[in-house]
Amino acid sequence: MSPGRVTLLSDFGTVDGYAAAMAGVIAAAHPTALLDHASHDIPPGDVLAAALTLARYAFLYPPGTIHLVVVDPGVGTQRRAVAARIDGRLFVAPDNGVLTRVLARGQEGEPRPEPTPEPASTPEPEPAVIVALDPHLVTDGALASATFHGRDIFAPAAARLARGEAMESLGTVAVDPVLLPLPRPERTAATIRGEVIQVDHFGNLITNIPASWLAGGNHSVPLVRVEGVAVGGPRRTYGDAEVGGLVALVGSLELLEVSVRDGSAADRLGAGRGAGVTVDLAGR
Amino acid sequence: MSPGRVTLLSDFGTVDGYAAAMAGVIAAAHPTALLDHASHDIPPGDVLAAALTLARYAFLYPPGTIHLVVVDPGVGTQRRAVAARIDGRLFVAPDNGVLTRVLARGQEGEPRPEPTPEPASTPEPEPAVIVALDPHLVTDGALASATFHGRDIFAPAAARLARGEAMESLGTVAVDPVLLPLPRPERTAATIRGEVIQVDHFGNLITNIPASWLAGGNHSVPLVRVEGVAVGGPRRTYGDAEVGGLVALVGSLELLEVSVRDGSAADRLGAGRGAGVTVDLAGR
Amino acid sequence: MSPGRVTLLSDFGTVDGYAAAMAGVIAAAHPTALLDHASHDIPPGDVLAAALTLARYAFLYPPGTIHLVVVDPGVGTQRRAVAARIDGRLFVAPDNGVLTRVLARGQEGEPRPEPTPEPASTPEPEPAVIVALDPHLVTDGALASATFHGRDIFAPAAARLARGEAMESLGTVAVDPVLLPLPRPERTAATIRGEVIQVDHFGNLITNIPASWLAGGNHSVPLVRVEGVAVGGPRRTYGDAEVGGLVALVGSLELLEVSVRDGSAADRLGAGRGAGVTVDLAGR
Repeated sequence: MSPGRVTLLSDFGTVDGYAAAMAGVIAAAHPTALLDHASHDIPPGDVLAAALTLARYAFLYPPGTIHLVVVDPGVGTQRRAVAARIDGRLFVAPDNGVLTRVLARGQEGEPRPEPTPEPASTPEPEPAVIVALDPHLVTDGALASATFHGRDIFAPAAARLARGEAMESLGTVAVDPVLLPLPRPERTAATIRGEVIQVDHFGNLITNIPASWLAGGNHSVPLVRVEGVAVGGPRRTYGDAEVGGLVALVGSLELLEVSVRDGSAADRLGAGRGAGVTVDLAGR
Repeated sequence: MSPGRVTLLSDFGTVDGYAAAMAGVIAAAHPTALLDHASHDIPPGDVLAAALTLARYAFLYPPGTIHLVVVDPGVGTQRRAVAARIDGRLFVAPDNGVLTRVLARGQEGEPRPEPTPEPASTPEPEPAVIVALDPHLVTDGALASATFHGRDIFAPAAARLARGEAMESLGTVAVDPVLLPLPRPERTAATIRGEVIQVDHFGNLITNIPASWLAGGNHSVPLVRVEGVAVGGPRRTYGDAEVGGLVALVGSLELLEVSVRDGSAADRLGAGRGAGVTVDLAGR
Repeated sequence: MSPGRVTLLSDFGTVDGYAAAMAGVIAAAHPTALLDHASHDIPPGDVLAAALTLARYAFLYPPGTIHLVVVDPGVGTQRRAVAARIDGRLFVAPDNGVLTRVLARGQEGEPRPEPTPEPASTPEPEPAVIVALDPHLVTDGALASATFHGRDIFAPAAARLARGEAMESLGTVAVDPVLLPLPRPERTAATIRGEVIQVDHFGNLITNIPASWLAGGNHSVPLVRVEGVAVGGPRRTYGDAEVGGLVALVGSLELLEVSVRDGSAADRLGAGRGAGVTVDLAGR
C-alpha cells in the first residue's frame, strides 16, 4: 500500500505555475502526500503522446498509487472527468482517450505494455472500474472554473483518493470510456505493415509492431524498412550498431523501434509519427 | 501544519545541478522535508514572470508551506534577501519585487489572485510580515559565495524555516519590500485599456484586465481587441471557439485572456508582453 | 541518516515517461522513499556534462542519500554497472566515467568540488568503495531488457540501497572505475592556459582553471582572455560588471568563469566547450 503517492502528468509545462497549482491543491488536502512529477512536457493537447507516456510508468508504481493525468484540450466542454482503478492503481483524467493504453492492461490478447521487474501483485488483474466524476461531489459544491479543471476538479479528486476515499463516492460507475483509435499493424505470411506511433526524446522511432510478431518461422533475418529505406534486421541493443548507424531493435515497450546509435533516427530518416514501417519476414 | 514541505522556484534550469544543489542543502538540514520543484524554467532574470508564476500556486499550498524563490539577477550586489509570512505561508526570496503579487494578497481592494478550492484557513489574512535576512544568522557565520546565494543563503534559510525556526530569528523586520511597478489597466465609461502581462506555455495572452471590469451595465457584449485586431466578446471557455479560432475569456487568475483553441494566440497575433488590449464595453 | 532519499539524474527528458519509470520502480520497492528529480535534461549521451552536474549537488545532500545517475550511451554493451560509496553518499551508475568528479572528492591534492554550508560530517572522507553490480543479484534473477537498464538494473539497485541493503551484497568490489580524461590546465610563472569545460544554463563559460591559481604574487590584476578576446580581470560577482558587460569571476565550483551580466557569455563570445582560456598573471 502506497502512503499517498500521487504522480502528475500534463501538458502544462512548469513555467507558469499551473502544474505547481495542482500540486498545491493536493498538498493542502493531504499534507503528507508524496508528489512525483512524471512530466509536464507533453506536447500541448497531444492525448496520444500522453497515453503512451503514462503506460511506460503507471504499473511500475505500486498498487495504491494515484496517477493524475491532465492533457485536456476539451476543458470546459461536455467531456467527462473520470477516475479509474486498473490493476490496483488509481487514475484521474479527462475522458478523452488518455487512458487508452493503461485500460488495455490485462485484457485478452493484449500484451502487458512493459515488463514488471517485481513480481506482479496479482497474476490476473481484475477488470478495470471507471467512475464518471461528479464535479459537485469532488468539490463539495464549490464552483469550478471553466478553464482550469486540473486545479479545480482533477487535483481535488486525486487528493481525495490519496486520502483513501472510495472512488465510487465521487461519481457514478461508467462503462464506456473514450478510447483512441490506435493504429493497428497488419501482417501477411511474408510482410508486416505498421507505422511509427511515437518519436521519443532520443529520436528513436517507436512503431506499433509487437516484438512477438518478429519471430519468423523460416530462420531468415527479417528486414525492416522505414518509408522504404532499409534499416536491416532487428538487433539486440543500440551498441550492436556502429556509432551513427541505423539499427532496428525491440524497445522497452516490447515494440519494434528504429534508432541511430548515439544519434537521432527521426533526424536521419526525416520520419515522424505516422511514417510507414514494413518488415519483410523472409529477409533479403 | 505542513510536515516541512518546501517548494522551489528559480530560473536555474535543471541541467547544471544548481537547483539540485538547493534541494540538497535543504535535505541535509531537514532530512524528511518534502521538496516540490515548482519550476526552474523561469526565463533567466525575469522577475515579473516569476512573480506571476508564484502567485498561481503559493496560496493553494497549505499554511506552513515554505516557498523558496530564487530569480536573482542582482546576486552579489547590495539587494537584500528576505523572508516573508503572508497568510500563513512562508517565503524566502531576494528583495527584488518577486513577491509583489503574493504581497498583494488580502490588501484592500486587491482581488485574491486565484480562487481557493478549499475553504480559506483565515477569512481575513493577517498583514504580511517581512524580515530582512542577515546572512551571518542564516549561515551561522559560514562564508557565502558571491555568485550562488540560492545555495548559500536562500536554501539554508528555507531549511531553517522548514525545521520550525522563527523567521524573526534570521534577521530584522523590514517594512519596505521592493515592489514591481505592475502596469495597471484604465477604464472609462465606454472602454477599458490594458495590456498583455504574460504569454503562457500554451501561447495564451494573459492581460491585466480583471474579470470584474467586464460586466457591462448595458447588456451589450463587450468587444475585445489586441493591438487593434478584433477578437470578439468574452466566452466561457476554450471549447466555445472553433478549433483554431480566437477567443477571449476569463482565465484562471480571474484576468481577461486571449486564446486560440488548440493553438497559440501569441503566434496567431504576433503579440507578446506589453501588447495593447482594449475592451469596447458597448460592443459592436 | 536520510530516510530513503533518492535523487535521479539522466538524459531521458521527461516527456516519454522513461524517468518516471525509474521513479516507479523505486517507489514499488520502497514505498516511502523520497524521490528528488535532479535533472533529466542532460544532453543525450553527454557523460562529461552529467559528471559536472552531479558534482554540484552530490555532497550537499546528507550522508545516506542515494544518487542514481543514468547517462548511458553504452547500454546493452559490456560496460559495467556500478555502485559506489563516496564520503557517505551512495551512487548507482554505469561505469563510463560519469562518477569521475565525485570520485575525486577527498583525494590528495584535489580541491573539494564545492564548499559545504554545513560542517562536513567527516573531516577526512574514507576512501571510495566501488562495487561492480551483478545484474542477477540486483534483479533476483529476473531478465533485464537490453535497452533500458535504468528501469531494469539501475533503479532496482538504487531501491535496494535505499532500503538499507549493503552495497557489497549486489556485486563484487572493483578498483578500476572508468575515469574521464578531464582536460587539465597548465601554468607558467606568467600565464595560465585552460579551457571552457561547460556552458551553463545562463551562458556562463565555466573553465577548468581553479580559483586558487589566480592569486598572483605581484599584486597585478590578472587579465583573462577567451580565444584571445580580453575579458578583464576577475571580479567578485556578476553585479560588479555593467549590464551587458563581460566579467570574469570565480564561480560556485571555485573555478574561473566568464559571464555577461544579465546575458550570455557563450552567445557574446561565440564560445563553447573546449574554447581556449588564458590568464596573464602580470596583467596589462
